[in-house]
Amino acid sequence: MAFLNDNYLKLKAGYLFPEIARRVNAFCEANPEAAKRLIRCGIGDVTEPLPPAVIAALRRAVDEMASRETFKGYGPEQGYEWLRGAIAKNDFRDRGCDVADDEVFVSDGTKCDTGNILDILGAKNKIAISDPVYPVYVDTNVMAGHTGETREDGAFAKLVYLPCKPSNGFIPEPPKRHVDVIYLCSPNNPTGAAANRPQLEAWVKYALENKALILFDAAYEAYIADANLPHSIYEIPGARECAIEFRSFSKSGGFTGTRCAFTVVPKSLNAQTKSGESRPLHPLWLRRMTTKFNGVSYLVQRGAEALYSPEGRAQARALIEHYLGNAKILREGAGRAGLKVFGGVNAPYLWVRAPKGVTSWQAFDKILGEANVVITPGSGFGSKGEGYFRISAFNSRANAGEVARRLQELKW
Amino acid sequence: MAFLNDNYLKLKAGYLFPEIARRVNAFCEANPEAAKRLIRCGIGDVTEPLPPAVIAALRRAVDEMASRETFKGYGPEQGYEWLRGAIAKNDFRDRGCDVADDEVFVSDGTKCDTGNILDILGAKNKIAISDPVYPVYVDTNVMAGHTGETREDGAFAKLVYLPCKPSNGFIPEPPKRHVDVIYLCSPNNPTGAAANRPQLEAWVKYALENKALILFDAAYEAYIADANLPHSIYEIPGARECAIEFRSFSKSGGFTGTRCAFTVVPKSLNAQTKSGESRPLHPLWLRRMTTKFNGVSYLVQRGAEALYSPEGRAQARALIEHYLGNAKILREGAGRAGLKVFGGVNAPYLWVRAPKGVTSWQAFDKILGEANVVITPGSGFGSKGEGYFRISAFNSRANAGEVARRLQELKW
Repeated sequence: MAFLNDNYLKLKAGYLFPEIARRVNAFCEANPEAAKRLIRCGIGDVTEPLPPAVIAALRRAVDEMASRETFKGYGPEQGYEWLRGAIAKNDFRDRGCDVADDEVFVSDGTKCDTGNILDILGAKNKIAISDPVYPVYVDTNVMAGHTGETREDGAFAKLVYLPCKPSNGFIPEPPKRHVDVIYLCSPNNPTGAAANRPQLEAWVKYALENKALILFDAAYEAYIADANLPHSIYEIPGARECAIEFRSFSKSGGFTGTRCAFTVVPKSLNAQTKSGESRPLHPLWLRRMTTKFNGVSYLVQRGAEALYSPEGRAQARALIEHYLGNAKILREGAGRAGLKVFGGVNAPYLWVRAPKGVTSWQAFDKILGEANVVITPGSGFGSKGEGYFRISAFNSRANAGEVARRLQELKW
Repeated sequence: MAFLNDNYLKLKAGYLFPEIARRVNAFCEANPEAAKRLIRCGIGDVTEPLPPAVIAALRRAVDEMASRETFKGYGPEQGYEWLRGAIAKNDFRDRGCDVADDEVFVSDGTKCDTGNILDILGAKNKIAISDPVYPVYVDTNVMAGHTGETREDGAFAKLVYLPCKPSNGFIPEPPKRHVDVIYLCSPNNPTGAAANRPQLEAWVKYALENKALILFDAAYEAYIADANLPHSIYEIPGARECAIEFRSFSKSGGFTGTRCAFTVVPKSLNAQTKSGESRPLHPLWLRRMTTKFNGVSYLVQRGAEALYSPEGRAQARALIEHYLGNAKILREGAGRAGLKVFGGVNAPYLWVRAPKGVTSWQAFDKILGEANVVITPGSGFGSKGEGYFRISAFNSRANAGEVARRLQELKW
């Protein structure tokens, strides 16, 4: 009989969001009146329409597909040159980062890319992740066989967990021990913390000294409001020798349902073979993408390109300001409710400490049951997330205000 | 230093299509006049615009994305229910195949899925592929470490190659030895051969007896013209216990640049753990898709759905008849030129035997240089493809006629 990948059987059965959906559905069925006033601040999904410049570009692209003369079949798997060029120029070179057009790989999602990147990495790497953490980093390493079994606290053997807590501003310090691959997410999902320059410098220094690889997930980069914070790991000297950066249009342009993202693999970035020879990773990722991927829909790439036009930039900026405005309202509401709040300044997520003695899932059930608001329990992101919950600012302004109001009314 | 995946270094440097592009570019630069009359019948890419029903659906979907009330964010990773349902009903249940809606997984490409399916399979499988073969099956197995080094004829150690030749109608027979996983592609890329019912029955029988898994690539199913040929492996009793089927809208609906495909994983299909326990593969693929993929663009799924409307079906049918009409013209032209031609009846590809003593690349260079037509050398698909070349029927009717004419004028 054909063999399956046994590593999949190590995965925890209940992925976080399905379990949330189950509890919300059960609540709504049992409480049809309360269900009518339910507000979802759980999953980090945008709510506002695509910017008009994107809509206009999509319409033009659909028209092109309707005529033989302008029809587009297969495009380059790694993305059209005009989109790679717009990204490299606007997101990197105009900000002083040395990124060439052909170091940008257009894809259909950062979730996909942060999982698929393991394809080109070896099996012997010692992997470090934050705790709490975006669950996909962990699960894709479990699938690839990079972990042992789960321990009692839900952590997987062989992974190195880097605790994120108030004392380090929820940005982990480099570990004392050697690791080969480090996942960093800034601005962070779920904590909303954004790394400052000294913190990223410490990580690049560690990575260069340890010849480690940083997988830098900057999917929420557009939410950085503080002018002193770096937007890209490539703002740090040396990062081109130790980091891959992941970016997405999901949250910057409202593309969660439209699907477009990109990954930067510098040509100066090396890893080693089993026998210790140093080789560049860029050709491996190029080969991976051209062999196992067929490029993002032409329509969608034209839509993404429009985000770099003057109108597109202004409209995307307004979208982000809208969500950051929600985050401010939610921060103030939760603060007035006496809750300790982190994040929500340079990120669309608030990381809220539940009152003493209240677990994440208890907070979830109480907020669902009494405020009819869906949040995400912090423990779903790792053991160090216990006692916290995440509030997403992706919503209408009216809903954000209403959630702030209801949080203040809650009696803990 | 972080470790890379050494298996990538085993891959052959020159993937087929980049090498073709290199030779074509060199020829065009050296012969600017001839370049003006170049006709491309190499890569299997559609040339005609999207069907009007698809265009209309795409326009409606773009409009939905422009308004808050109808905007779509994240959809189900495995595809919207309305598309999975339309596929399961129209492509399978209406043809007597028992496929449930939730056994259909919508994706962005069959190339992606046939590569990604290895994620859920174990490392110990003995893998069988046809020769000649679609190179992605081989390369993704090399990347996953399922092969040894290349032998002198370009074949990889550890893979079982199943020869396709005129004597078996280019459909391989089940091997005498045991294998665990078999890639079958019908209608075939590159040979254009389509498996008949007895041939598929023999494969299902072999798979059930050997508890093997068939990976059935039916991306060209829509080109089956002979009413007696099965369109799906699930037309064969027992296939739900041994086969995964891959399908695509690329060639059936002109979606090569629009990107949508799907894979059927029956819930009754099992594989074994290392310790020999039998487990269903469906939950593993569901987990893979929900963890490492974020679903196909909403716009594109609405476009694909339109292919199942009465107008969409008629328009897609007309597209396919157009390309099959080209194939007929090319078949007749190549036949009149004295060449032995296979395929091109139930597939958009012709598999042509070069005159005695002429290699595939010699034929390529001669046809490029003298007829100014780009074809694909058969040896690029495997050692048994040597001495053959593939002609793609994806073109305008005028170009198909012109290529047929030029082939007749060639002096070998």
